[in-house]
Amino acid sequence: MVDFNGENIRHAVVERPVRSVTGIKSAAGIETLAVEEPLEIQLAYGAADARVVKQISVTMRTPGADFELAAGFLLTEGVVRDPTDITHVVAVGHGGNTVRVELAPDVEINLLSLERNFYTTSSCGICGKASLLALHTVSPPRRKNDFSIEAGLLYGLPAHMRKQQSVFARTGGLHAAGLFSAAGTLYAVREDVGRHNAVDKLLGSEFLADRAPMRDRLMLLSGRASFELLQKAVMAGVPMVVSVGAPSSMAVQAAKEFDLILAGFLRDEHFNLYNGVILSKRIAMNA
Amino acid sequence: MVDFNGENIRHAVVERPVRSVTGIKSAAGIETLAVEEPLEIQLAYGAADARVVKQISVTMRTPGADFELAAGFLLTEGVVRDPTDITHVVAVGHGGNTVRVELAPDVEINLLSLERNFYTTSSCGICGKASLLALHTVSPPRRKNDFSIEAGLLYGLPAHMRKQQSVFARTGGLHAAGLFSAAGTLYAVREDVGRHNAVDKLLGSEFLADRAPMRDRLMLLSGRASFELLQKAVMAGVPMVVSVGAPSSMAVQAAKEFDLILAGFLRDEHFNLYNGVILSKRIAMNA
Repeated sequence: MVDFNGENIRHAVVERPVRSVTGIKSAAGIETLAVEEPLEIQLAYGAADARVVKQISVTMRTPGADFELAAGFLLTEGVVRDPTDITHVVAVGHGGNTVRVELAPDVEINLLSLERNFYTTSSCGICGKASLLALHTVSPPRRKNDFSIEAGLLYGLPAHMRKQQSVFARTGGLHAAGLFSAAGTLYAVREDVGRHNAVDKLLGSEFLADRAPMRDRLMLLSGRASFELLQKAVMAGVPMVVSVGAPSSMAVQAAKEFDLILAGFLRDEHFNLYNGVILSKRIAMNA
Repeated sequence: MVDFNGENIRHAVVERPVRSVTGIKSAAGIETLAVEEPLEIQLAYGAADARVVKQISVTMRTPGADFELAAGFLLTEGVVRDPTDITHVVAVGHGGNTVRVELAPDVEINLLSLERNFYTTSSCGICGKASLLALHTVSPPRRKNDFSIEAGLLYGLPAHMRKQQSVFARTGGLHAAGLFSAAGTLYAVREDVGRHNAVDKLLGSEFLADRAPMRDRLMLLSGRASFELLQKAVMAGVPMVVSVGAPSSMAVQAAKEFDLILAGFLRDEHFNLYNGVILSKRIAMNA
């Protein structure tokens, strides 16, 4: 079994019979599929004599890096800020699809931030502005974005990441997210059937290793850049996001609002820069 | 303004300044982006003298076909079964991002099914089996799947759909879902930044036009096939799903469990058949 982003690939893929049809010819075969199964994330918090356990999320994910996924979810949803907030993460039961994150007794959690996605205003309905305002209330303190990277370095990043996508290589069916240094060094890659899960696994792995906020890292996305993914970058302090696909209008808006460098459509020798500047062949936030 | 799957494209795209970089050359330009904004779906139900209004979902979507999206969401989540369950759908407030679905007073809604995604069992944690069981409890009555289509017809469907993807053509950034007849005729296409929303818009448009269950339609997905998308096909009675990308393990499992024909990796003159048979060059569920 090859590596699945640092773990055993055993549970991430499964083999199934398939009929392969080309033109008018058809043949029986076996194909490797990416596994998709629900993961329940539980949160345990409160003083030792009044502990509360609450189910906070069920997500369809590819098994593997589940502890990282849970930690990343809590980080990017604004529930925890510091790795020491988490005392440990445990598997619950025997199904392999439930994890519980135990918080230190003194951590005050913001249950409201967990319901942020259901934020509404009574006056004007919800709007993009409200989502950005909600993000302002939970995002970490702002600092100057002084990240920069040589523009020409970007072209090689997707191939670099693909080489590490062990499940994609076998199934052709997974989203990936990777973290790179300003010198183009690949620190980590995570894969999942859900792109938000790939990002949570990636940011969670850095968070658990006490490397957040990730102010000197670039995050590469194998697909499109949505608001949700930019939001996760903001919460983790990532200064630059690059997507192979197109960004949405609100991803660009979030990048502008929170001073993230955002590039998209990175293919072959081309990319578009949606937020940031190019100076002496380097990409940076400001001149 | 060109058509956006039957609607005005005005709110579905937006133009933003961009710096386009190719090799070491860079130029300023304007790019068209797919809009992403939150949509709040409210449900109004109960007797005339005891009406309840409940917020049931907030989803990040591309504006357009919002009524269809709301109706499709209620259909595929098992809240409504018949178009007459819905008396009307209205826009609420002035933001354009809230819609309310009014149910007929005699419709009994299953609030539990709305919380199905948060389904757990106390004994063994959640698992794929539990998700499939939950789907069994809300899915429409089973009927024999007698859909069939000439295998060679599949090859032309993606290009056919792409021609109707008005927003994708302008932004390169949207998922699409289309419904075809067994003769390869394209009935409808819907696009969205979220693939689940594209499917809800598509199935909602047919549902509102009283063409559900869609037992004589094939659904084509521009991306990958996940469990969630198969679940929506099951709820709408669609007998065959074809994806351009890879299916997940649980998508295949759902197809087998609910007798849907499932093909994937449809590219050029090739596809894989994950559930169903090929007989005399026709694809069908059973021999």
